Amino acid sequence: MAHHAGAEIYTDYPPPLTPEQEGYLVQTVKDWVVEHALTVRPSTAIVPEETNPVTVLATSAPVTLFPSPFPQACFEQARSLQQIYNELYASIASDEQWLEDIMKELIEVDDFLANLWKIHLSVKEEGYVQDLSLGMFRSDYMLHTAEDAPVSLRQVEFNTISSSFGGLACKVAEMHTHLATFPSAKHPLAYPPHPLFANSTDKSPINTIGHPPPNEAVSTLVAGLAAAHTAYGPSRSDPPLPTCILFLVQDTERNVFDQLALSTHLYNHHHIPSFRLPTSKILAYTSIPSKDTNPARPLIYTPPSSPSTPYEVTVVYFRALYAPTEYNTPTSWAARHHLERSAAIKCPSILLHLSGSKKIQQVLTSRPPDADHMKAFLPNHPETALENLRSTFAPQYSLSASQYSASSEPEGIRLALDETTAANHVLKPQREGGGNNIYRTKIPPFLNSIPRDQWKQYILMELIHPPAVAKNTVLRSDGQVVSGNVISELGIFGTCLWKNTPGSTVPEILHNTEGGYLLRTKGKDSDEGGVAAGFSSLDSLILFAEA
Amino acid sequence: MAHHAGAEIYTDYPPPLTPEQEGYLVQTVKDWVVEHALTVRPSTAIVPEETNPVTVLATSAPVTLFPSPFPQACFEQARSLQQIYNELYASIASDEQWLEDIMKELIEVDDFLANLWKIHLSVKEEGYVQDLSLGMFRSDYMLHTAEDAPVSLRQVEFNTISSSFGGLACKVAEMHTHLATFPSAKHPLAYPPHPLFANSTDKSPINTIGHPPPNEAVSTLVAGLAAAHTAYGPSRSDPPLPTCILFLVQDTERNVFDQLALSTHLYNHHHIPSFRLPTSKILAYTSIPSKDTNPARPLIYTPPSSPSTPYEVTVVYFRALYAPTEYNTPTSWAARHHLERSAAIKCPSILLHLSGSKKIQQVLTSRPPDADHMKAFLPNHPETALENLRSTFAPQYSLSASQYSASSEPEGIRLALDETTAANHVLKPQREGGGNNIYRTKIPPFLNSIPRDQWKQYILMELIHPPAVAKNTVLRSDGQVVSGNVISELGIFGTCLWKNTPGSTVPEILHNTEGGYLLRTKGKDSDEGGVAAGFSSLDSLILFAEA
Repeated sequence: MAHHAGAEIYTDYPPPLTPEQEGYLVQTVKDWVVEHALTVRPSTAIVPEETNPVTVLATSAPVTLFPSPFPQACFEQARSLQQIYNELYASIASDEQWLEDIMKELIEVDDFLANLWKIHLSVKEEGYVQDLSLGMFRSDYMLHTAEDAPVSLRQVEFNTISSSFGGLACKVAEMHTHLATFPSAKHPLAYPPHPLFANSTDKSPINTIGHPPPNEAVSTLVAGLAAAHTAYGPSRSDPPLPTCILFLVQDTERNVFDQLALSTHLYNHHHIPSFRLPTSKILAYTSIPSKDTNPARPLIYTPPSSPSTPYEVTVVYFRALYAPTEYNTPTSWAARHHLERSAAIKCPSILLHLSGSKKIQQVLTSRPPDADHMKAFLPNHPETALENLRSTFAPQYSLSASQYSASSEPEGIRLALDETTAANHVLKPQREGGGNNIYRTKIPPFLNSIPRDQWKQYILMELIHPPAVAKNTVLRSDGQVVSGNVISELGIFGTCLWKNTPGSTVPEILHNTEGGYLLRTKGKDSDEGGVAAGFSSLDSLILFAEA
Repeated sequence: MAHHAGAEIYTDYPPPLTPEQEGYLVQTVKDWVVEHALTVRPSTAIVPEETNPVTVLATSAPVTLFPSPFPQACFEQARSLQQIYNELYASIASDEQWLEDIMKELIEVDDFLANLWKIHLSVKEEGYVQDLSLGMFRSDYMLHTAEDAPVSLRQVEFNTISSSFGGLACKVAEMHTHLATFPSAKHPLAYPPHPLFANSTDKSPINTIGHPPPNEAVSTLVAGLAAAHTAYGPSRSDPPLPTCILFLVQDTERNVFDQLALSTHLYNHHHIPSFRLPTSKILAYTSIPSKDTNPARPLIYTPPSSPSTPYEVTVVYFRALYAPTEYNTPTSWAARHHLERSAAIKCPSILLHLSGSKKIQQVLTSRPPDADHMKAFLPNHPETALENLRSTFAPQYSLSASQYSASSEPEGIRLALDETTAANHVLKPQREGGGNNIYRTKIPPFLNSIPRDQWKQYILMELIHPPAVAKNTVLRSDGQVVSGNVISELGIFGTCLWKNTPGSTVPEILHNTEGGYLLRTKGKDSDEGGVAAGFSSLDSLILFAEA
């Protein structure tokens, strides 16, 4: 059966190393990562603040020493879905009424969502002055194995804000390719012979390329930013100002070099300048002319180092303000409101940000005889395409009464409270950022410990069962090298630029592309992901065709 | 007068910064250096060993925040001399008898030179099997100011081994260019207006380019390695082996990324694989077949991670073994001998290594009526070209009786022992690596404290008087930003490949190129240089034409 071929590959992968081989591989990786800026700023756990008071040190991003094997058919399926997913989320973000119907009971109990919604309503009342929206998306999947079924893709989440690691993911693929092909693909120094590499001693190697597929994440994501920048058109200021893109970043960002890979490419290949703006400085360094001065509301960025040369912002690219914890100053919400009402194209807008809620993901799984939202949002796609999307949905359930998922409500609560069925599920809050999920048998006592009217904040999702025997070795940011059983999560990048027309819920799509991937790999005994948190590592993949 | 124009430039340079400007500039540099691997491994003074036990951290190389102003005429003169200097040192290294005559009294008292010479004699007796030599040179200069004379170049030294910082120097020039031109040369965010930049508010700016000249050090140096690799020809092993270049490196090298810039370029642009070999592993991982097996003595490198795929070494590029302190194990000298007798092209050979001695530099300053060595070594160059070289020589003196500088001997000793004249001189030992020079009035007591028969190990050189008012700001590897008066040293890179014919002292020159520069800038109160030691910073230059 199909998934058995996969299991065999995982069993003898990665190839074992002699001490000399491991020494060479680790040293080569340690040098390569710095030479190519596959790096992060070290956490204070690695370098205490008193040792690194002025933040000039860098360390390796956590990386796997080998690319992880991945079924080619699943990779290609994930890629083939991306542009339809892009369109789906553009459509969702364009249907304010539908979104409101879904979100309203969450808004009642979740301050974060409520504040976002309030900003939307306020800007709507004033009148939006920008009808373009940009999505830079990443759809995340895991491999799922089940008895008597081929290995399949299951979507973990669809990211509509701050989809990160495109920059570093490209470099990991490049590094693994270097390791598999230097000085020649037939005799790479870093990797011993294996059927997945071109140095295979088998007559019929599994993989004929022998290295990861090229990763186009940076050029894809940057092309999306450039398309939005161009679509913005000329300056709306009087006199006209030079234009720029703003990268909105966290004040204490450690994942700087992932972001710089995009801004540098944007400047070198598209000649578009971009500036980094920490969230704490939004109100200090950006402004919008008063209504009387300029009703077009251009967003003006005044570089603190050069106040005499202001810029007009075409696109605000959010690499921050996705999590409730980031709105921790008296002016955080005012700053978000300020950006939303400006003429800059937001990546994402408030409505697109909200569209990435897990609640939306759960609602989309409903199908006839319940509401068929997929069909409604993608009327021009054949049913087979929609079924292809649906095939990646893990069963998931609301824990509330909802007009859109009435029939599943009792089932979700029943599954969550029964210890036997709960053992095959995860409870997910709306909240972003990892660390908040409740797993398996901890679900019933957890739900019983909180008021029942809070339950609707959670989604119950069936656990995904990845191949059990995958292994890899990781270089951590603290320099330690650890090996063990791993689970991988595949992300596919895509971008979408669309225009909304007043009175219509159908977006006019101007740019819709797929390109680039992220593989994040974590130790199997860890339930949570999040590369930045140090639990998981950046990886690339080596494809195999199943027997 | 000409040098006054220079002085005015130095006085108001770099332009003063507001706190916001300094904040932006420093943060941009801190991010740029890591993004582009303008980095070194941190010393234990910056990150204690217990914090960084596995050497995965990197930090900024010490860099200046601004390029330093440099007179265009002096820069062009230095460039114009390089190919003649390359030829001069190729000729010196090809004249064994002349070298022996110069070195013999040093060999008597200096174990390091004696051991190098012994290796040469031993290999000579066995018979050299490689008639090609490669030089990767860097000629170092300082600006010299004197009363009533234009500012001029004075050569500090000519490096014939381990000429480093070509890789990082290119990146500094690129960084300063970015800072001066992003997002536009008319309105760079990082640099306030100044007549040296293209953002000048003056009607007639001093520099019309507004940024450092392009730095071709990496492509020039790598082209030299590639020329030697090609000239080596096919494998001399039976059966033939794949060929490679070896980078011979120190076991505890921190300047890794400077070297990787070369090896990566060599592979990406010339498709030549190279491997890093720490000096402690020379005898473990390289071998030469016995005379009976293969009298051609190919140098075989066996990668420890892949013992079944040996390589034949075409070029051994020394980034190590230049200093006596590196020969600190029982087998260090055997390893050097082993490499010298192999068929690999050495960069440098023992004779070329010795040609870089400060004693040679001093002897070359002799001129008619004393011996005219320059003319003898460069018979095909017009006297004006030789005078151009000589114009860069600081007055320097032997402290020994020598057949080649008989007339200066008494003068050197007289100048060194008299406190008044000593105050304008520096006493230099043969030793490489900085930190061993004796300055000014410390010279007489120092000489009087050592036996007189040791004096001949030293050269007395007149001090160079750089422009007094140059200033710059430095980002150190520990993240501190310091400003002050500075002194800069200009290095010009060049490579030369030549062939020696038995019985002839005239090298057949196959490849002779100039390209790329290094500017090293240090605080004015420090007498010693050496970027690796943390005292001086990597810099680039912005040219100005003198009035």
